[in-house]
Amino acid sequence: MEISIIGASGYTGIELMRILANHRNVDSVKPYSRTYVGKKVGVVNKSLVKFDKFQNFHDFDGEKTIDDLDSDVCFLCTPNGEAMRFAGTLIEKGIKVIDMSADFRLPADVYENTYKIKHTATNLIDEAVYGLPEIFREKIRTARLIANPGCYATSAILGLRGICAAKFKSQFFSDKIVVDAKSGTSGAGKKTEEGLLHSEIYNNLKPYNVSFHRHRPEIENILRKLDDLKNLKISFTPTLLPISRGIITNIHIFLKENSGIADFNEITGHYNEIYKDEFFVRLVGNVTSLHSKISNDDFEIQLKDVLHTNLCEISLNFDAYANRIIIISAIDNLLKGASGQAVQNMNLMCDYDEKEGLMMAGGV
Amino acid sequence: MEISIIGASGYTGIELMRILANHRNVDSVKPYSRTYVGKKVGVVNKSLVKFDKFQNFHDFDGEKTIDDLDSDVCFLCTPNGEAMRFAGTLIEKGIKVIDMSADFRLPADVYENTYKIKHTATNLIDEAVYGLPEIFREKIRTARLIANPGCYATSAILGLRGICAAKFKSQFFSDKIVVDAKSGTSGAGKKTEEGLLHSEIYNNLKPYNVSFHRHRPEIENILRKLDDLKNLKISFTPTLLPISRGIITNIHIFLKENSGIADFNEITGHYNEIYKDEFFVRLVGNVTSLHSKISNDDFEIQLKDVLHTNLCEISLNFDAYANRIIIISAIDNLLKGASGQAVQNMNLMCDYDEKEGLMMAGGV
Amino acid sequence: MEISIIGASGYTGIELMRILANHRNVDSVKPYSRTYVGKKVGVVNKSLVKFDKFQNFHDFDGEKTIDDLDSDVCFLCTPNGEAMRFAGTLIEKGIKVIDMSADFRLPADVYENTYKIKHTATNLIDEAVYGLPEIFREKIRTARLIANPGCYATSAILGLRGICAAKFKSQFFSDKIVVDAKSGTSGAGKKTEEGLLHSEIYNNLKPYNVSFHRHRPEIENILRKLDDLKNLKISFTPTLLPISRGIITNIHIFLKENSGIADFNEITGHYNEIYKDEFFVRLVGNVTSLHSKISNDDFEIQLKDVLHTNLCEISLNFDAYANRIIIISAIDNLLKGASGQAVQNMNLMCDYDEKEGLMMAGGV
Amino acid sequence: MEISIIGASGYTGIELMRILANHRNVDSVKPYSRTYVGKKVGVVNKSLVKFDKFQNFHDFDGEKTIDDLDSDVCFLCTPNGEAMRFAGTLIEKGIKVIDMSADFRLPADVYENTYKIKHTATNLIDEAVYGLPEIFREKIRTARLIANPGCYATSAILGLRGICAAKFKSQFFSDKIVVDAKSGTSGAGKKTEEGLLHSEIYNNLKPYNVSFHRHRPEIENILRKLDDLKNLKISFTPTLLPISRGIITNIHIFLKENSGIADFNEITGHYNEIYKDEFFVRLVGNVTSLHSKISNDDFEIQLKDVLHTNLCEISLNFDAYANRIIIISAIDNLLKGASGQAVQNMNLMCDYDEKEGLMMAGGV
Repeated sequence: MEISIIGASGYTGIELMRILANHRNVDSVKPYSRTYVGKKVGVVNKSLVKFDKFQNFHDFDGEKTIDDLDSDVCFLCTPNGEAMRFAGTLIEKGIKVIDMSADFRLPADVYENTYKIKHTATNLIDEAVYGLPEIFREKIRTARLIANPGCYATSAILGLRGICAAKFKSQFFSDKIVVDAKSGTSGAGKKTEEGLLHSEIYNNLKPYNVSFHRHRPEIENILRKLDDLKNLKISFTPTLLPISRGIITNIHIFLKENSGIADFNEITGHYNEIYKDEFFVRLVGNVTSLHSKISNDDFEIQLKDVLHTNLCEISLNFDAYANRIIIISAIDNLLKGASGQAVQNMNLMCDYDEKEGLMMAGGV
Repeated sequence: MEISIIGASGYTGIELMRILANHRNVDSVKPYSRTYVGKKVGVVNKSLVKFDKFQNFHDFDGEKTIDDLDSDVCFLCTPNGEAMRFAGTLIEKGIKVIDMSADFRLPADVYENTYKIKHTATNLIDEAVYGLPEIFREKIRTARLIANPGCYATSAILGLRGICAAKFKSQFFSDKIVVDAKSGTSGAGKKTEEGLLHSEIYNNLKPYNVSFHRHRPEIENILRKLDDLKNLKISFTPTLLPISRGIITNIHIFLKENSGIADFNEITGHYNEIYKDEFFVRLVGNVTSLHSKISNDDFEIQLKDVLHTNLCEISLNFDAYANRIIIISAIDNLLKGASGQAVQNMNLMCDYDEKEGLMMAGGV
Repeated sequence: MEISIIGASGYTGIELMRILANHRNVDSVKPYSRTYVGKKVGVVNKSLVKFDKFQNFHDFDGEKTIDDLDSDVCFLCTPNGEAMRFAGTLIEKGIKVIDMSADFRLPADVYENTYKIKHTATNLIDEAVYGLPEIFREKIRTARLIANPGCYATSAILGLRGICAAKFKSQFFSDKIVVDAKSGTSGAGKKTEEGLLHSEIYNNLKPYNVSFHRHRPEIENILRKLDDLKNLKISFTPTLLPISRGIITNIHIFLKENSGIADFNEITGHYNEIYKDEFFVRLVGNVTSLHSKISNDDFEIQLKDVLHTNLCEISLNFDAYANRIIIISAIDNLLKGASGQAVQNMNLMCDYDEKEGLMMAGGV
Repeated sequence: MEISIIGASGYTGIELMRILANHRNVDSVKPYSRTYVGKKVGVVNKSLVKFDKFQNFHDFDGEKTIDDLDSDVCFLCTPNGEAMRFAGTLIEKGIKVIDMSADFRLPADVYENTYKIKHTATNLIDEAVYGLPEIFREKIRTARLIANPGCYATSAILGLRGICAAKFKSQFFSDKIVVDAKSGTSGAGKKTEEGLLHSEIYNNLKPYNVSFHRHRPEIENILRKLDDLKNLKISFTPTLLPISRGIITNIHIFLKENSGIADFNEITGHYNEIYKDEFFVRLVGNVTSLHSKISNDDFEIQLKDVLHTNLCEISLNFDAYANRIIIISAIDNLLKGASGQAVQNMNLMCDYDEKEGLMMAGGV
């Protein structure tokens, strides 16, 4: 099978190639980039030169390139506003499209308000499937166009999903949900800005977009679909971490006065239920008995356990004092938060083993 | 003037010496340590050997040492449960005592519940003054015994203080205050635990004590005193950062339905008022007009601006969508969060310039 | 096939499991550890729990365990001085043994001088094959006992090997070879020492064992075998880096007065020759023409290109001013410098594809 | 006294302001910058806003600004090639000039060869004094123009100086001196290049300018002046470290065959002699007896002991096996390697206490 990647020299494009290097169903990869035309892929990641399947960088010349493009699958790692120009042409040619940008994640009006970009392919928004396999697996299998989720959104939605059952929604203050997320610098991409220089970040920590971040509407848009929680509101605040990879998201949820530990136990049972067959999601600890004794084999959540893997770990905790549930979700922003999830989607669309290419084990 | 430091080889002890090195009222420093008896202070921080005022490490032999101790001021950098054995003897001899541990920060019952240590000097708890000059400056001037605040507590209390005016308390949900704090590894001290090894932390992030941390009762104990907010509850969750110094605390507060931006503006005005003469607290931006235009000279909050300084920076933000106030507080955990604040207290107790020794400017 | 790992909870043991997780010829892995008896492997690396092939930790009770042990291959990740007690028993039972310690890397007298440990299995030293496939591949295929190379040694020997041809040995000052190496902290293992705490390392750099390090005799021992360079002397100095993984070794070699660029070109040609079929070694740039124009596809050497891979990159440079060759060698200390190389050796011993399990692509 | 800083928004400019904030002889500082005209200095370092002595940024308009400039001292933190245009005008007006660039560090022909810039003020090169107080203190006192040393050059020259006595020069191979230096990223300045992004550096290490770096001629130029070592050659190779501040330089020197430990002892005695009264240079250990017993108060060299200080630490070691001396020199590149040394020079020129403003104690 042959894969094309438009915008292959950025962090998500490189990470895609890194995964596809060991993907047994992929024979050939054509990377496109304006900057590195004609160069070997080694120019952006030297370890890739050991794999024959990578062609040298092809030139990317907008619509013209798209018109001529011929592949089984095409990943679009382009800035917001670009994929809407290309996706239609590609899917009409029968090419499966996975868009890493935000172009097809939101209803047109929300997109335009959030990204301040006029949407020019609104007809495709309904067709696009939000590429979170743990929720939309069946739709993904037959999709022609995938809106690959944002990194913070993946982390928050997987963490929050279990509380969004209809039976729980009356138990907590649904508009008092704090999502305090932290991300490594690769999440900001390869932008050569002063604020992203190593010297500026190394001994630093930067909260940003404190009262509004563009992934907040994305999180709400998906969660509201799940259980008709039309009024669900998230209070989202991100922080830039002085590490290169990884996201940890703390989710604080308050139960109502007449609720408590019994409800928490019911909720953890529900999480166990929805994730028990999910390979890439792991609940930390024997969650149903979290309130009682923790078994010897339980471990605390930490970022390094998911780094360099496609896993999402979720820790469920109860604070009886404040009648608060604390859900902590950890992912590698470039894998489960971007390119790993994109390959998981490709595997489903192509009827491959969903785990193919994604069985990495992490390390220090 | 002569200073004694009991437990001088830990991070707070070393940081005290680092500050006292340039303190113009301090002529002589006697460090005590069981580990380094007879050694030069350079054994724990080589740059200190350039300052004549430091004596070699004296042996510390518990009560016996305390009985013989003779100094103007004594800093106790001892583990919880030790200072309560020594403080009485010292203040009876007329030595001003600044305790860096938790021994005198809480009412006896709360202390015993929180630290699982029997308190043996409960008579001194009332006498001890909580050493946060921005709140208790006048009491500190005449105190014999200071309970130097915890690092997270300093960050959270300074950030929360402005909302604890009686006139605001009906505007927010006082039991839905999320305090999501992050600290560098020096906050954990020099404990040689596997989890604190560089290899374990470098590409990591670890939430810990997720549903209960010992600084939560301390924060509440102080804030409840301020405005008779007897029911104030904090939902506190800390995270260990892969940097060596610094704390950033995100505080999320929800306004009630009939409150909004006008109340936020009133609150920011109150913060401006209470901190306008405080040298070591800086509100980021021209806060009273934060909701309108930010002036050219305003800057965002980031940890590096307070590192290696005794400053606390506080950023006030409003999220109209969720009717949420986000207060972000940044300190250097070893300075304003520990030893810098301790010297600030000493300066007040000794009638020196409050800023003496503490006028550091930070850097990359 | 079944694998046993003695001492599986340290960094090299965990990294072995991380590789074996995706090794298609390995069906079952039995980890041994005194600390974690009965626990799941997830207790040391949570991402491993997703792989069925890992048994829970078995107890390790010295000779008794070894007597009962039954596996196709046994990796010994034990402290120096232990493997010499166990290796004989294991190979007599027909178990292939790969020793990660220094026990079989040196002649007995050099070992005893270097490690200050009495060698009790000197008869096995001659039988043991030094596990550097790029030099001893054929011997490794039939070996019963492998002395897996040290991390610095791997980096230095692969970098120096090309200058040790008999035809070059008269061209440089063979006793003025400076090897200035730098390693991340995982090279020091999981020792809970104050000097390895994150707070102590994060903004630090520590030269250590400045005039004598135990890998120097190992480097010389191997290189002297290659070309009868009996007088070869290395001047080795290591430095501890504030990162968790990776080694960069700078090798400075001086040519004699009557030698120069032409000799350097001949040497680079020789490096091209010896490494042209080596999958895991990559010369940076089109080395034979390094002195002239560097082609567009050439890239500089940097550590991140080999991190999380089993690759060794080598850069060859000439300084005409000082008539000096600068060879720079980069590896991941836990992969090509330890566990990756060990699996490469296992693959050769078991007649598997040498690259099986080792085709990782690196990333930020 | 009033100070002007041209190019005050880069790392050396900011560090100058950080030092001058606490300099008791400096009343007023005028920072110049094209980027931040009219803004408060807080825009580049917020902790500076607490000091009244800093004016807002003035515009810098080349010669016109210089013609109008009026100050006691002017620091030029401009790119190479700029200071030669301004220095003459300034010193004619009686303003003491400290140039942080390379414009006046080298003879004109060496400068032009090295920096590929035509020198337009060659008449000032002879007048300029190289600002390394430990060598040129008396000349600095009366200088009108200081060529402030490069960061690597400071580290290497202070480390090498003691071997450059006439009596030692016949004992080592003077053209086989390897200087293997490592620097944090602030040494590269605030350049917004992809290679300096945090994501690219965090888990990385990059050797660069491997066979030629511009500080090599500077080191040789100064050392050759000291002892008529006209043929002294340095083999210099730098590496970029994944930390923000600090330089460690390893210097490897080979003794001739008939020399040995006795010569090393004589050399260490000489280092003790030349540095015994130097406040900002510290020899690690009781160097004259390094070969015998190290006393209890001796410590190893490490970068963190000099970070955030103006100190240079030097460790002297002997490798009897290779008859090699290893000298290790550690500085903070922004302090002793740039702005700290510049203020040290200013103090000498203005007849202030040489240590004024520079008595920082370092920390984790």
